Amino acid sequence: MRKESRWIRWIKWIVIVTVLFVLGFCIGWFAKPSNTQNHKDSSHYLKDFLEEMKADKIREHLRKFTQLPHLAGTEQNLKYAEQIMKEWKMFGLDSVEMVPYDVLLSYPNESQPNYISIVDHLGNEVFNTSLAEPVPQGYEDISNIVPPYSAFSAKGQPEGDLVYVNYGRTEDFSQLQREMGINVTGRIVIVRYGKIFRGNKVKNAMLAGAKGIIMFSDPADYWADGIQPYPDGWNLPGRGAQRGNVLNLNGAGDPLTPGYPAKEYTYRFSPEDGVGLPNIPVHPIGFHDAILLLNNMGGEIPPNNWKGALNVSYRIGPGFTDDFKSQKVRMNIHTNNQVTRIYNVIGKIRGAQEPDRYVILGGHRDAWVFGGIDPMSGAAVVHETVRSAGRLLNTGWRPRRTIIFASWDAEEFGLLGSTEWAEDNARLLQERAVAYINADSAIEGMYTLRVDCTPSLHTLVYDITKQIPSPEEGEEGVSLYESWHKRDNWTNDRDAPRISKLGSGSDFEAYFIRLGIASGRARYTKNAKTERYSSYPVYHSVYETFEIVEKFYDPSFKRLQAVAQVRGALIFLLADSQLLPLDVNEYADSLRKYAQSIAQLAQKNLGELEAYKVSFDSLFSAVENFTVAARDFHERLQTLNKADPLQLRIMNDQLMYLERAFIDPLGLPGRPFYRHVIFAPSSHNKYAGESFPGIYDALFDIENSADPAKAWEEVKRQISIAAFTVHAAAMTLTLPA
Amino acid sequence: MRKESRWIRWIKWIVIVTVLFVLGFCIGWFAKPSNTQNHKDSSHYLKDFLEEMKADKIREHLRKFTQLPHLAGTEQNLKYAEQIMKEWKMFGLDSVEMVPYDVLLSYPNESQPNYISIVDHLGNEVFNTSLAEPVPQGYEDISNIVPPYSAFSAKGQPEGDLVYVNYGRTEDFSQLQREMGINVTGRIVIVRYGKIFRGNKVKNAMLAGAKGIIMFSDPADYWADGIQPYPDGWNLPGRGAQRGNVLNLNGAGDPLTPGYPAKEYTYRFSPEDGVGLPNIPVHPIGFHDAILLLNNMGGEIPPNNWKGALNVSYRIGPGFTDDFKSQKVRMNIHTNNQVTRIYNVIGKIRGAQEPDRYVILGGHRDAWVFGGIDPMSGAAVVHETVRSAGRLLNTGWRPRRTIIFASWDAEEFGLLGSTEWAEDNARLLQERAVAYINADSAIEGMYTLRVDCTPSLHTLVYDITKQIPSPEEGEEGVSLYESWHKRDNWTNDRDAPRISKLGSGSDFEAYFIRLGIASGRARYTKNAKTERYSSYPVYHSVYETFEIVEKFYDPSFKRLQAVAQVRGALIFLLADSQLLPLDVNEYADSLRKYAQSIAQLAQKNLGELEAYKVSFDSLFSAVENFTVAARDFHERLQTLNKADPLQLRIMNDQLMYLERAFIDPLGLPGRPFYRHVIFAPSSHNKYAGESFPGIYDALFDIENSADPAKAWEEVKRQISIAAFTVHAAAMTLTLPA
Repeated sequence: MRKESRWIRWIKWIVIVTVLFVLGFCIGWFAKPSNTQNHKDSSHYLKDFLEEMKADKIREHLRKFTQLPHLAGTEQNLKYAEQIMKEWKMFGLDSVEMVPYDVLLSYPNESQPNYISIVDHLGNEVFNTSLAEPVPQGYEDISNIVPPYSAFSAKGQPEGDLVYVNYGRTEDFSQLQREMGINVTGRIVIVRYGKIFRGNKVKNAMLAGAKGIIMFSDPADYWADGIQPYPDGWNLPGRGAQRGNVLNLNGAGDPLTPGYPAKEYTYRFSPEDGVGLPNIPVHPIGFHDAILLLNNMGGEIPPNNWKGALNVSYRIGPGFTDDFKSQKVRMNIHTNNQVTRIYNVIGKIRGAQEPDRYVILGGHRDAWVFGGIDPMSGAAVVHETVRSAGRLLNTGWRPRRTIIFASWDAEEFGLLGSTEWAEDNARLLQERAVAYINADSAIEGMYTLRVDCTPSLHTLVYDITKQIPSPEEGEEGVSLYESWHKRDNWTNDRDAPRISKLGSGSDFEAYFIRLGIASGRARYTKNAKTERYSSYPVYHSVYETFEIVEKFYDPSFKRLQAVAQVRGALIFLLADSQLLPLDVNEYADSLRKYAQSIAQLAQKNLGELEAYKVSFDSLFSAVENFTVAARDFHERLQTLNKADPLQLRIMNDQLMYLERAFIDPLGLPGRPFYRHVIFAPSSHNKYAGESFPGIYDALFDIENSADPAKAWEEVKRQISIAAFTVHAAAMTLTLPA
Repeated sequence: MRKESRWIRWIKWIVIVTVLFVLGFCIGWFAKPSNTQNHKDSSHYLKDFLEEMKADKIREHLRKFTQLPHLAGTEQNLKYAEQIMKEWKMFGLDSVEMVPYDVLLSYPNESQPNYISIVDHLGNEVFNTSLAEPVPQGYEDISNIVPPYSAFSAKGQPEGDLVYVNYGRTEDFSQLQREMGINVTGRIVIVRYGKIFRGNKVKNAMLAGAKGIIMFSDPADYWADGIQPYPDGWNLPGRGAQRGNVLNLNGAGDPLTPGYPAKEYTYRFSPEDGVGLPNIPVHPIGFHDAILLLNNMGGEIPPNNWKGALNVSYRIGPGFTDDFKSQKVRMNIHTNNQVTRIYNVIGKIRGAQEPDRYVILGGHRDAWVFGGIDPMSGAAVVHETVRSAGRLLNTGWRPRRTIIFASWDAEEFGLLGSTEWAEDNARLLQERAVAYINADSAIEGMYTLRVDCTPSLHTLVYDITKQIPSPEEGEEGVSLYESWHKRDNWTNDRDAPRISKLGSGSDFEAYFIRLGIASGRARYTKNAKTERYSSYPVYHSVYETFEIVEKFYDPSFKRLQAVAQVRGALIFLLADSQLLPLDVNEYADSLRKYAQSIAQLAQKNLGELEAYKVSFDSLFSAVENFTVAARDFHERLQTLNKADPLQLRIMNDQLMYLERAFIDPLGLPGRPFYRHVIFAPSSHNKYAGESFPGIYDALFDIENSADPAKAWEEVKRQISIAAFTVHAAAMTLTLPA
């Protein structure tokens, strides 16, 4: 018995010792903090972050920053910058700084106004266009409202016969010269605004030999049916006109310091060597004045698609009809270029785990006048996003990666503030930037959401919009995704809301097209199917006030709130997700569509494709290769051990650098700062993003080329570059085996 | 008692439970592997790695790969590639692949030999230069020895008067034209080899209007006193001549596919549009033939520094003296350019922790003939390094980062194999490459070590050489560092062995100057103070045999072994150190010296500096800023928690990307593929590395400029670019605060 009892006691002891040891071991094992931070589920914080963004606050911010005109380079715009800096600090950002650059801006001469005259045979001015827009009610006492002008116009007083060239597109000038046999050399062209960027119109006029160019807003392009002109509605009054720069920078930033930030010590080219400056006078007018210039024009009646909605014949000219033949048009342009200090405001939240990874939310602050829509509807949204992020920081949250908020200056003068900062920080951005979300105007219509972004962000945009409520009345409980999906379904092959390609014309340009940082933008928009006008009627006029938003575009400010939540959720999830929410398979799908679409475009010239042995096979094969690499990468992601910080970083680096892989350091032909091989504006229209822009432009040039054999060689070269780039991008998704 | 006993028992129990629990806890705690790999001290492995590299093996490899001529594009060079691939696999690399490109090469026409004649007034050839070098003993039966030629020479048979232009440098042509008043237009120039890259001589001749250029090896530049010509010594026989390409690629790689890898689908320019191809005939001769061409020359006696060591007057011409005046010189050049397949061999060892970080050891395999020195002394060293690394892999070692070994092809034709691969992999390299170590000829003299590298590698080179024994006889127990230090102390401000700047002329070019990857090279060299000849006498001749190394340069093969150990230790420590062994403070020190030195150079034109308001202040201020940033970064390194894998990676990324920060995406003026703002060859000599090459070239151009005001503007622009780049690089050493 004793023996047995001792045995039993021993067994008991062993069991106890073992159990206790195992217990201790287990507790020790699990008590030890893992090196991978226990990433607290951030969805809880995301919810707080989005709910904290308030419609009323956005209204307040918009009201505050649209009281006074704040053109880039003016005192008032500096004051707003200082106020934003102060408030961002107060909201709780880790750091906020003012970053100045000295760039070339352009202002009307205050003592010599710009206008256009009709002059009689004695040289007397028998008609002059208006010197300013009628100021809207409530703003009568405001000074410093800059009259409509074309920034960076050459000075001069050219006089001559007018020629009407429709929208001033490459194809319009080509039709004019080839089919209609009209030469504009030494003449002044008049074109309507719309379809393409105004700088391209000016370049086309210069290339055609015109000695001046007048641009007008035609109701066909800037008037919504059944809507009153402002202030009774949101249409452009007849005396309203569209300001805007007429540069052809192609991404160069400050015309005098291309490629380098415009700092105090920076070498500046002389203005004659500046990039993209037109050498002819340019001026914008409203349709009220346009009628009077077009009314007596002679020459042929144009084709129907050249006719706008004014009660005139749209005769092409040159010059006026019989009775008025001796009258000429004279432009009086005295606009000055001058190097001027501008100010970006840069605020940062330091990333907790990866301070060297940047997610950027940037939008401009400078406005042509009040900027009620452009850009302050966007700036108010950024302001509210910063406020909400600050609140979250105070509750103990800190994002995994660094978030940078930017209030850019001088966007209206050629994206100058954002481009100079990109040039200044190019190395950091190239190595560290995860994504750039743009925050220009948050609204341009009352219909639904509009998103333009790089393909790898598609999935994130869909996920996010499913978590945000629709701002539309009567859609309580409906998600933004559903609301958007219902209104704008992807046209072709996919049952999902439409997402478009990025073009240019706003501050994402340097980040996306020059540096290859995954980028996107979101805003509320019009119904593209029924509303045919370009941008929105009062675009760049004095009528872009706080009131036009409050009365017409978004009385409840819920649409702006929804846009704030979309932009905010994008930066939140890009900055705080352990694994970057970028979808490589979406990129593969898009590349396939783009390749098909550009090959299709080339099919127009089937005979020549054969004659010159042009083949898209290498491109299709590269896309196929990319598709396989993306699928394999995606599969590897599924087995990733997220608890291993180095493994995670390695995969995230591949995700981050994918967009960078599409950058060709040599740039597109003749455009060294447009370096994205997949996305860039065509040379013929800065606004529209083309896929495979190198091939697109080469195909576009076929038609106007004097040497088709050479032009087709360029197409082949561009196909080869595109194929190589897609292959190279596929390689970045692999690791040494 | 019972009560007490129970208490005691309880206490006993509690103690036991506690002890067991704590024991278990502790074991559990410590048993759990930390996420930061317990980085086994790698110095033990390094020792094994270096000791495994054997002199005898290097001899064996060199013997094996110098049996037959293996010019790029020939069958024999492919056979060697296949053999290397096979052996690298056998040695144990994780993967070895053959990577082909189709590039433009250049060969003599086999049925129409190249030569130069003196022709009489009837056009009869009264003297012809030799068609080939006398083949060294033992190699008489070898076929496929390409005769001396200038690769990529234009074809043609120009005839005219000779003009002697010393070394054919910019300053020689300038002196000829300005001071001596001689115009070479329509004439044939003859220059001696040496001082600058031969391609620059050809370019200068073309710019001056010459219709042909002859280059000869003068004993003043290719002859060591007291040494016999090969095979009795290592001097160049009189009938030996230097082969070599005469391109001006400026880093473009394959002339027909600049910027893109020369793959099957790649678009190729037509040869007329190729980069850097000369449009005049070029031919190299030995001094035996040179005497006969120079002997009867007329014209002036040149200044003393134009005179070589031949027993001729070195008269400048044009043409021959009185008696021979009617004689002309005719070049007969029939060399063909043709697109040819070349093969790189790429071997990899996958990194254990950071497979996405690359350390590259690359050197070329193609040779003009046998390549006894150039490149096989280097290739044998790489081969032995791979063998030793394979042995180490078999013992269980695996480096932290990926190591890539490369056997490049077609280096002799313009660094083509290495540049095409760099173009092919540019995105991966830009994001992932830590360092590139070059492995061209491992020996060019018998004196001491020579290292050229980026400043951040200085400290590592010193550390390494202290761990490697001197290969010199009688220096047992002396380190390579001491041996080197004794022979070549840094000239100016530092008591340490001299390390020089990287120039170009070997395969590191695309990696360092285009992509900004920290690079270095090491070889055994001559005594620069006493041995004045360029490179080494038999350079690029048929006399570069295995025997010249075995008999003269390194009979024990210990010098090659020492070079193998230096190159090997570099890649080992770059690949396996937890923290990258790159020294940012050294970069700061070097930048300061370079800034002082370039400012000093400008002081030559003191008056103009003032007149044109040229200031170096911005550059000095940028360097100061960089110095502070480097110091702060270095301090942060000291407090780095290396056990935190993410912290470590973040710091390593900053170290890795520092070199990248000096890259200007716009390139140097007119040289888009030379993008390093701190280091590049001058436009006037590809071989020599200049610091701040943009400023250097702009200053160089001052003297020859017709418009000094404009030339000084360019100096100012280059100073501004340099200052900005240094500022930008400083920024990369910081993180958001």
